[in-house]
Amino acid sequence: MSACVVLCSGGQDSTTCLVWAKQRFSRIYTLAFDYGQRHSIELQAAAKVSALAGAKEHRVLTIEALAALGGNSLTAPIPVETSTPREGLPNSFVPGRNLLFLTLAAAWAWQLGVEDVVTGVCQTDYSGYPDCRENTILALQSALSLGMDRTFRLHTPLMWLSKAETVHLCRDLGGLDMLSWSHTCYNGAVPPCGTCPACQLRAKGFAEAGIADPLLLRLTPPQSLG
Amino acid sequence: MSACVVLCSGGQDSTTCLVWAKQRFSRIYTLAFDYGQRHSIELQAAAKVSALAGAKEHRVLTIEALAALGGNSLTAPIPVETSTPREGLPNSFVPGRNLLFLTLAAAWAWQLGVEDVVTGVCQTDYSGYPDCRENTILALQSALSLGMDRTFRLHTPLMWLSKAETVHLCRDLGGLDMLSWSHTCYNGAVPPCGTCPACQLRAKGFAEAGIADPLLLRLTPPQSLG
Repeated sequence: MSACVVLCSGGQDSTTCLVWAKQRFSRIYTLAFDYGQRHSIELQAAAKVSALAGAKEHRVLTIEALAALGGNSLTAPIPVETSTPREGLPNSFVPGRNLLFLTLAAAWAWQLGVEDVVTGVCQTDYSGYPDCRENTILALQSALSLGMDRTFRLHTPLMWLSKAETVHLCRDLGGLDMLSWSHTCYNGAVPPCGTCPACQLRAKGFAEAGIADPLLLRLTPPQSLG
Repeated sequence: MSACVVLCSGGQDSTTCLVWAKQRFSRIYTLAFDYGQRHSIELQAAAKVSALAGAKEHRVLTIEALAALGGNSLTAPIPVETSTPREGLPNSFVPGRNLLFLTLAAAWAWQLGVEDVVTGVCQTDYSGYPDCRENTILALQSALSLGMDRTFRLHTPLMWLSKAETVHLCRDLGGLDMLSWSHTCYNGAVPPCGTCPACQLRAKGFAEAGIADPLLLRLTPPQSLG
């Protein structure tokens, strides 16, 4: 009985990871975070896709500290930039976010006796967040393993995929239906706003993959003729 | 103007770090955590020693997630073991605790434009916590620096000192008075219970240093004769 913890925000990438993990692990635990994100509606999506994937347990941990520190457009009342700045980090960068998420995922895994953690971070076609890069993840894997005396494996199946390749992976694993329940929009809008960087990245990926976004199909099904 | 963030739990080690940092940095920011610890009374000590050290700002961040995960004697209703087990970790080990603390300290430092973070973790005479070891701290320093695109320096002035040497360091830096306001007891008792592992370690250190604990002197001053 192999088991893993999947970081499951309810977004496109973590939903694809969930589909990927379902093929490799017999027991799946999913973990989402309520950190004061303006798009907290994604937590509904996280619960929905976890249930669809047959997760043994889905937990939502609260992290007040990120919102308390503030200073970014995801946890403070600052408008989300609609384009990525040429220099510096986008204002949606929440310093330490993925490091905290993975540390808490490992802490839960430690208690469950689980050594495998799956996350949808991606260095290709990413949003410019340094904590999505492979060197960060490898360094953190060492820190977590040393810091909890346990050999953790941080799996990042999307690390080197473009968004279009991620769409294809999800389709090939039979996960497009599950993807129709994912949430991506940073502004928390349903149907998605279409203008925030997260919406733009998702739309670009589906366009390049030549596949219609199942979320949009579910929300606005094509009108029948006649 | 050099500045640093000091992880300040209000205990003996972090108070000594605060005294150490005061000599090296002109601006000091102190950070404590309310994580559901049974000895939350230490937060009063953290505020007190921060004020005595002239900290520019003292913050307390809340972390609900550690208590939500539970499973240890510091954040769940499990009695604190009075001795360290021969094998395995003590039941006061909170998986991920120091990794989370340092990550949030770095996140705050990132916002402040500060690159130096000071923590009182110690590999010698420690409580058996793997996240206090130098290899953990070095790996985490890499992960934090990579993950936030900033060169963080994690200072650990007590890493290789015995508890007795830490007492001498604090005395030599003129910090014994500040130490009289620190709190150590895991059971949150004032005066300290004297039997929990933290109390025992503190008492052993002062005994070996040949110095009376200024906390005990403050709480129970010697009776005058006659």
